[in-house]
Amino acid sequence: MPIYRAPVEDTLFLLNDVLGLERHTNLPGFADATPDMVEAILGEAARFAEEVLQPLNRVGDKVGCVRGADGTVTTPPGFRDAYETYAAAGWVGLSADPAFGGQGLPYTLAAAVSEFVSSANMAWGMYPGLTQGAIAALAAHGSDDLKALYLPKMVAGTWTGTMNLTEPHCGTDLGLLRTKAVPAEDGSFRITGTKIFISAGEHDMAENIVHLVLARIEGAPEGVKGISLFVVPKFLPDAAGAPGARNAVSCGALEEKMGIHGNATCVMNYDGATGWLIGEAHKGLRAMFTMMNEARLGVGVQGLAQGEVAYQNAAAYAKDRVQGRALTGPKAPDKAADPIIVHPDVRRTLLAIRAINEAGRALILHTALMSDVAHRAGDDKDRQAADDFLGLMTPVIKGFLTDKGFQGAVEAQQMFGGHGYVAEWGMEQFVRDARIAMIYEGANGIQGLDLVGRKLPANNGRAIQAFFREMAGFVAERKADPVLGPLVASLEKGVGDLQKATMWFMANALKNPDNAGAGSTDYLALVGHVVLGWMWVRMAETAERLVAAGDPRRDMLERKKITARFFMERLMPETGACLARISAGSEAIMALPAEAF
Amino acid sequence: MPIYRAPVEDTLFLLNDVLGLERHTNLPGFADATPDMVEAILGEAARFAEEVLQPLNRVGDKVGCVRGADGTVTTPPGFRDAYETYAAAGWVGLSADPAFGGQGLPYTLAAAVSEFVSSANMAWGMYPGLTQGAIAALAAHGSDDLKALYLPKMVAGTWTGTMNLTEPHCGTDLGLLRTKAVPAEDGSFRITGTKIFISAGEHDMAENIVHLVLARIEGAPEGVKGISLFVVPKFLPDAAGAPGARNAVSCGALEEKMGIHGNATCVMNYDGATGWLIGEAHKGLRAMFTMMNEARLGVGVQGLAQGEVAYQNAAAYAKDRVQGRALTGPKAPDKAADPIIVHPDVRRTLLAIRAINEAGRALILHTALMSDVAHRAGDDKDRQAADDFLGLMTPVIKGFLTDKGFQGAVEAQQMFGGHGYVAEWGMEQFVRDARIAMIYEGANGIQGLDLVGRKLPANNGRAIQAFFREMAGFVAERKADPVLGPLVASLEKGVGDLQKATMWFMANALKNPDNAGAGSTDYLALVGHVVLGWMWVRMAETAERLVAAGDPRRDMLERKKITARFFMERLMPETGACLARISAGSEAIMALPAEAF
Repeated sequence: MPIYRAPVEDTLFLLNDVLGLERHTNLPGFADATPDMVEAILGEAARFAEEVLQPLNRVGDKVGCVRGADGTVTTPPGFRDAYETYAAAGWVGLSADPAFGGQGLPYTLAAAVSEFVSSANMAWGMYPGLTQGAIAALAAHGSDDLKALYLPKMVAGTWTGTMNLTEPHCGTDLGLLRTKAVPAEDGSFRITGTKIFISAGEHDMAENIVHLVLARIEGAPEGVKGISLFVVPKFLPDAAGAPGARNAVSCGALEEKMGIHGNATCVMNYDGATGWLIGEAHKGLRAMFTMMNEARLGVGVQGLAQGEVAYQNAAAYAKDRVQGRALTGPKAPDKAADPIIVHPDVRRTLLAIRAINEAGRALILHTALMSDVAHRAGDDKDRQAADDFLGLMTPVIKGFLTDKGFQGAVEAQQMFGGHGYVAEWGMEQFVRDARIAMIYEGANGIQGLDLVGRKLPANNGRAIQAFFREMAGFVAERKADPVLGPLVASLEKGVGDLQKATMWFMANALKNPDNAGAGSTDYLALVGHVVLGWMWVRMAETAERLVAAGDPRRDMLERKKITARFFMERLMPETGACLARISAGSEAIMALPAEAF
Repeated sequence: MPIYRAPVEDTLFLLNDVLGLERHTNLPGFADATPDMVEAILGEAARFAEEVLQPLNRVGDKVGCVRGADGTVTTPPGFRDAYETYAAAGWVGLSADPAFGGQGLPYTLAAAVSEFVSSANMAWGMYPGLTQGAIAALAAHGSDDLKALYLPKMVAGTWTGTMNLTEPHCGTDLGLLRTKAVPAEDGSFRITGTKIFISAGEHDMAENIVHLVLARIEGAPEGVKGISLFVVPKFLPDAAGAPGARNAVSCGALEEKMGIHGNATCVMNYDGATGWLIGEAHKGLRAMFTMMNEARLGVGVQGLAQGEVAYQNAAAYAKDRVQGRALTGPKAPDKAADPIIVHPDVRRTLLAIRAINEAGRALILHTALMSDVAHRAGDDKDRQAADDFLGLMTPVIKGFLTDKGFQGAVEAQQMFGGHGYVAEWGMEQFVRDARIAMIYEGANGIQGLDLVGRKLPANNGRAIQAFFREMAGFVAERKADPVLGPLVASLEKGVGDLQKATMWFMANALKNPDNAGAGSTDYLALVGHVVLGWMWVRMAETAERLVAAGDPRRDMLERKKITARFFMERLMPETGACLARISAGSEAIMALPAEAF
């Protein structure tokens, strides 16, 4: 039976000591997030994740969701009760607008909580997770009437949300979508079409389900410029705002899939369903991207979360399993063999996962804080700078952290030998669940293209240039530090590789865009290594400072310093290989005719 | 529904043009392997794999093996008929000794055939695959009586074989094993104990199952020096050599696992079962290693095989799926979108899988040829040199090609977006099946230790030194070649990194063995990149020669040259990162106390 302990101490170290949450009390909602309050909230979330959600993870995988002949979907045993408890405790609206019943706390805090939930039970966490994205899109683009009708229910968790983009013939290329919207006389629309891969599309956990649906209004332009966003509830709200008549939307089938069996992945049929326009006609993609960007950060959290829970189990196993002897002689001579944690290759594997997880958590929380600044700060310049960083990091967090989360789950599974392949140990579920995070909300290849094709050139490279300036200052200030110096030197090398790669694109991608496409995935990985390296220097610096001040968390702080060194020695060298691959360009890649593949 | 076409043309190119099988007609059995014969055999194997085995792959996964209350195991529908056809056609004994009914053809050819089988249906292929390993161990170490009794049945495929090593508390560390063997008066033994993870341990495909079982004879020394190998048949052969009384061995349970559902992974209970000693008492590990080494090459083939079939499906999908437009403007303006093969990132992904697959196949066939030389050559020096190479490459083929095969399957799945996560497309099965190859027959971390701890220092480094001499000569002869020169320069850089890593171990691992353990996995990857790079230069050189001679396979040959360039530009840079990681040593890795993990 897998274990899970939410990393509360590590999260508090990041929020309080590294990121300094309390320095942002000028932002709305942050004054309420006192250190005591944050600790209490994280502790409560940890308890719920460990005691309620994690024990449901295996049954969720084994039993999965079941669709009845009438199109109803039953979630795994225990899922519904857990959701009711969660919603009743106000978790869904933790960072939502108090105007709609939310607690208005920092999104940063909600991101931390969502990691715990996702580690404990990724499939379950998707139900409230998608609701949060739908809340964000409605709040940003919905009319006051729509907001008043839907948001209080969704913020309370009484109603859940979904996003409906994909159709059988179109995923990445939404310009091809065919779902139709016909205006009705009362200002609503009749939506007709088939959507696939709709997570949480139908279930028994909430009294209503609010679908956000992309469709094309009759007569709209072709391509992405003719797409609109609609709200289509499962039950039409009656005059009192309570679930009324059944809408013409139903779950036609559940997908049989590799993992996240506890989440209902639905084919959704819209048969003239009643929907209402969100925002302007033909500008649905922009509105959906509000939801998508939120969701992409959430998927990055899922990558981290699976890497974390897989790590915890692998570390526990490595300390428990006795097999063979240390290369330097027996370490447990009283036993028949040594625990496998004595082996450098086992430690190397564990440290590699941990070095990604802890810096990934730092990057997510730092970026979530920038999201709070971007949405809540009073100063335009602060908001813009934070939004630039958020835009630049969104594909990196989604793409890099889900690649690494999956890799971490695979490596953790490997620690178990044959037992890792057997269902009862739970490790193979982490691998199967983690796999989807690389695919949905824009496959990771698309994240690379978003980074290189959109985020880099946007506003004449303003975001990446600001990042380089920040790195230059950061490095210059710490280079001569006797303790941090070696770490900073590695970071500087990584930043240099990233600058070279960026300049290579500037010199070669304009004349041939294939040179950007051929290097986009490696560029994303290169940025990923550099920003995690930056996080490690910040964590090591904080640890050094706290140790000097006599902080009682000495073991944890020393571990941070050693893991920082490990990251620089063992993971940072990848930036050189990324640069070499990027600089190779697209010639060999484009040389073959399509038939040769 | 997934597709599969056996790579007959590529295999013939390797056997005939690159490796020159016909230059080895001095070896027993090779004279029969004329080009026509080889082509006919590969064609027949391809047909069987494509038409019989591949259609059973999904049902094997979906239905799996079922254990009855009486301990019998039913294989998936169609598995048994396919096996009977396969055995009747003589495939099991393709390279086995004619003295026991085998065809005596090169093992090289059998390795090629096993790739086709494993691509088409990995779980099915394990039944005959394990039999071949058991044949090898019995042939090398069994008494004449045992060989006469068992080998003809096993070579004919009428009886299948298994290997029984693992117990609940011992996998890697066989010194801990507890299964007991008590001598009986008639010279046989009574075997008692529990073995786990026994592939093909019980099934309905053959009239008898021959278990090779590691056990400790009563009073034997502790540790690995007290382990003996026994043959324990499911049915005791009667006087006529036919299956007689049921032996006291039974399947206690089937493991519920991540993949290879079509293969029965059994808990085997030995309750005083009758067995006979193979080879000398207490020297069972050496005998088992004959089987294990054969099996490790076979597992490397599985890695390649899953990477190959996954590639084929991803390439077909990329040519078929239309979505978005090329970065350089529409390529299929008459369609709503371009096929995704126009995108550099899609091509990069496909080429990376292909560059590993084709060089992996070359390495496997080259190494299999060295295995034939090691076992069949008349000259002692030839045999020793071939055996040295075989020993050096066995962990690399097992470890590197299964890591890369899994990675290839994951990347191929990624091409499908959400469809890759859904069972009906078959891609997620390739990933789940490929995963086990990194684990069994010695987890890949163990392969790294075998390479660095055993194979490198053996005979004062004779094997690696011979390899470096071969590389030096190979590079020197081709460095100035105008066409091959750039490829050779990349290879030379890789060889240089490998030499530096080897010297680093010599300088640092003696004084602290943890420095070897901390770099073993990276060293294995480093060797893997170098030998695949070597194979690419050989393939490109052959392609160049054949194109110049007007060979009609021009498209294939040009593709080889481009893929060679891709490998050097995009995959070879990893050797520098491996060297950097190895040179970092073990300090940071060993610094933390076990509790800190």
